Amino acid sequence: MGRPSVRDRIVDAASEEFHRHGYNACGVKLVTDTAGVPKGSFYNHFESKEALALVVVDRYGTSRRLEDLADRSVEPIARLRAHFGFLADDIARYDYARGCVFGNFTAEAADHSPAIADGVRTAFAVWTKAVADLLREAGDSLRGQDPDVLALFVVNAWEGAVVGARAAKDGSSFAAFFSVVFDSVLK
Amino acid sequence: MGRPSVRDRIVDAASEEFHRHGYNACGVKLVTDTAGVPKGSFYNHFESKEALALVVVDRYGTSRRLEDLADRSVEPIARLRAHFGFLADDIARYDYARGCVFGNFTAEAADHSPAIADGVRTAFAVWTKAVADLLREAGDSLRGQDPDVLALFVVNAWEGAVVGARAAKDGSSFAAFFSVVFDSVLK
Repeated sequence: MGRPSVRDRIVDAASEEFHRHGYNACGVKLVTDTAGVPKGSFYNHFESKEALALVVVDRYGTSRRLEDLADRSVEPIARLRAHFGFLADDIARYDYARGCVFGNFTAEAADHSPAIADGVRTAFAVWTKAVADLLREAGDSLRGQDPDVLALFVVNAWEGAVVGARAAKDGSSFAAFFSVVFDSVLK
Repeated sequence: MGRPSVRDRIVDAASEEFHRHGYNACGVKLVTDTAGVPKGSFYNHFESKEALALVVVDRYGTSRRLEDLADRSVEPIARLRAHFGFLADDIARYDYARGCVFGNFTAEAADHSPAIADGVRTAFAVWTKAVADLLREAGDSLRGQDPDVLALFVVNAWEGAVVGARAAKDGSSFAAFFSVVFDSVLK
């Protein structure tokens, strides 16, 4: 493999720094310093920090492995549990800091940037639809609940569990999520 | 009533501006300008912006009317529903922008400020305990679920619904929360 392009190095650095420090706390200079590229090169590749944010949100979405939610070789509820298990491990790996990129951009920037608001709205909608499609397969486990409403609830409950984990800096919110969602809501 | 003190005017202004713009995007100068007090007066009342943030978190907690959760004149589940109804109305009033102050400080500052991390951890713990105490009263509605686990789950699910509402800028996440929590989890 060749050396990553300047553009890729900027996206890598921004993915790391926005996640670690937050979008508002992190300027273009920090991103280009982390990337090891001249600050001036930034605007050859991105119109603005906001345009870069959209690429970061998109890349984070790809890293969430939503394709696993459609893997019919695994029973649907087990598949859903494995999906959130993967996300939980990813948060625990950073000692429960950093949170979810979608939630972070929603909190920090969605009220102020229509483009970022659009990006996170789309990201959540794609994720929620993938969960709803899985739930439709699960049939009886839903006990008559609407799969679209349930999917929206479960995705939001996950986002909230991430907030709770980050506030407490422990996994108790994830344990509560798995217990209530898989032993009560989807039982 | 007399004119509010300089300190009160700073707390009022910070409550408004941190909620509207976010903590990192909002400097001491904006707060003192909004309060209509000289910037220099800030440090007579607060050691730092961080110290002010703790007062803002505390005041927001008081405004959440947690005392209503202990009002035994209302049936417990109806009381819990009214509590989240009050919170939902408060978010809808700002067209689903702004979010929850506890969640916002968690996302923006809890990883970087031990004092703010401690403030939001305590705020969530007090709220979760009030919900758990109510759930203990509710008895049969829990269907054998642990009230402390359930309380943590419900508080987190609410925080996530606020993130979802803010991303979508509509009330669908709140509708999903009320439907699943009150027609399934606590039925």
